[in-house]
Amino acid sequence: MPLSEAPEDRVVEAMRYACLNGGKRLRPFFVMQTAALFHVDTRAAVRAAAAVEMLHCYSLIHDDLPAMDDDNLRRGLPTVHRRFDEATAILAGDALLTAALGTMADPDVHADPAVRCELVSRLAAASGAHGMVGGQMLDLLAEHQDLDIAAITRLQRMKTGCLIAFSCECGAILGRASCASRQALLAYAHDVGLAFQIADDLLDVEGQENDLGKATAKDAERGKASFVAVLGVERARAQARLLIEQAIAHLDVFEGRAALLAAAARFVVDRQR
Amino acid sequence: MPLSEAPEDRVVEAMRYACLNGGKRLRPFFVMQTAALFHVDTRAAVRAAAAVEMLHCYSLIHDDLPAMDDDNLRRGLPTVHRRFDEATAILAGDALLTAALGTMADPDVHADPAVRCELVSRLAAASGAHGMVGGQMLDLLAEHQDLDIAAITRLQRMKTGCLIAFSCECGAILGRASCASRQALLAYAHDVGLAFQIADDLLDVEGQENDLGKATAKDAERGKASFVAVLGVERARAQARLLIEQAIAHLDVFEGRAALLAAAARFVVDRQR
Repeated sequence: MPLSEAPEDRVVEAMRYACLNGGKRLRPFFVMQTAALFHVDTRAAVRAAAAVEMLHCYSLIHDDLPAMDDDNLRRGLPTVHRRFDEATAILAGDALLTAALGTMADPDVHADPAVRCELVSRLAAASGAHGMVGGQMLDLLAEHQDLDIAAITRLQRMKTGCLIAFSCECGAILGRASCASRQALLAYAHDVGLAFQIADDLLDVEGQENDLGKATAKDAERGKASFVAVLGVERARAQARLLIEQAIAHLDVFEGRAALLAAAARFVVDRQR
Repeated sequence: MPLSEAPEDRVVEAMRYACLNGGKRLRPFFVMQTAALFHVDTRAAVRAAAAVEMLHCYSLIHDDLPAMDDDNLRRGLPTVHRRFDEATAILAGDALLTAALGTMADPDVHADPAVRCELVSRLAAASGAHGMVGGQMLDLLAEHQDLDIAAITRLQRMKTGCLIAFSCECGAILGRASCASRQALLAYAHDVGLAFQIADDLLDVEGQENDLGKATAKDAERGKASFVAVLGVERARAQARLLIEQAIAHLDVFEGRAALLAAAARFVVDRQR
């Protein structure tokens, strides 16, 4: 094909494809809702929320690659490397990660550069070798391993928990919240993150491929460690419910102003996709 | 293999392998030398320099992947995906990119968070979809294309020039240099960056595989656009020399205090690897 005026636009097209084709938007929802608790300007919060979503979408692109989870379907559409090609998928992921961290440093996110630096630092910590990326490494190494519940919990805290925790902490950082408020949100996020993962495992076992927009029963086929494999369906479901009640209890400090966060916690375990 | 205490250490091992096995350290050299012009504390500058090198090494890991340039040898050693595996290489690259941008936000890099935010923003801009990643996309799309000299120049400015430019600008940002000093360093970097790429193309044609520590004549085999392919060896060599003289002239504003930067410019075209 001939090189157009700006052929690098292909990578931008792949970035848009990965970010703008549905998804639950759970992480940006957490950013917006926690920011609202501290009266953060919506136009600022939405930029931080977009950064978190870009980071999440980069992780999905790379996780779906043939060398990783080798998935063909995501949100009911071909994964980025299937729709484009592997090289474009790797580059689109790289560019989204770069844009996510770069966006947090943007003056439009917060007037105080110290706040923006904290956002960059915390987001990098949540998503790097000792956070999300380390969790994905663990997940790949854990295939066909007998993990106990402590090891699975640690894996999931790193792989998905850290970024969900950052999403909830983000509003507190933007709003210069008190230490108590910030700790309450982190505790909420940790419980919700784990419940989210248990619900994901349950959907992998029980869900319908059409509803999910991605393949089901893949974890079991791969011999992947999961809460359901260790606990069984009934105990896993009970554990998720318990975590959600615990998460909602952490919101008590906000005296009813966090009703949407409480509802979101319930949605996380009741969702069908 | 059984899961050790911290199996995610595999990704850290791959990160170290990619960063600490040689290399010219040209970009951190530029950071240190430009920072020295403005009397920046060495302990602060070296952190920014490390961040730039981590970013560079991430780009090498991902560029070497089978889906990209598919290289087996780098710096005389197996590439990361050959030494480890593809998944680990993708993750190690992701984690290095994350660490690079995260490091720039670290208080140890500069006391003023506004300076740190500027470093994050500029590094992200230099390495994202409209900088290095966009350049790599262009490079992949350009295989078996007849590019003219303007298109090759644009490709190389994005793919390698932007990060070299940032390396030189970095010292000026850390040292809160005058606009004139900063512009002089950027002009120097642009010329050196282009000369560096022409020298690379010449080495690909004329170099010895043993000296280079990587495969030679690969660009021509792939039908990759290069300065040498368009200009021929003699004119390409003359062009590189011209660019270097021009680069050194930009250093005049520093009245002899940038002698090492001038020497580095000469090294860039005279090097054997």
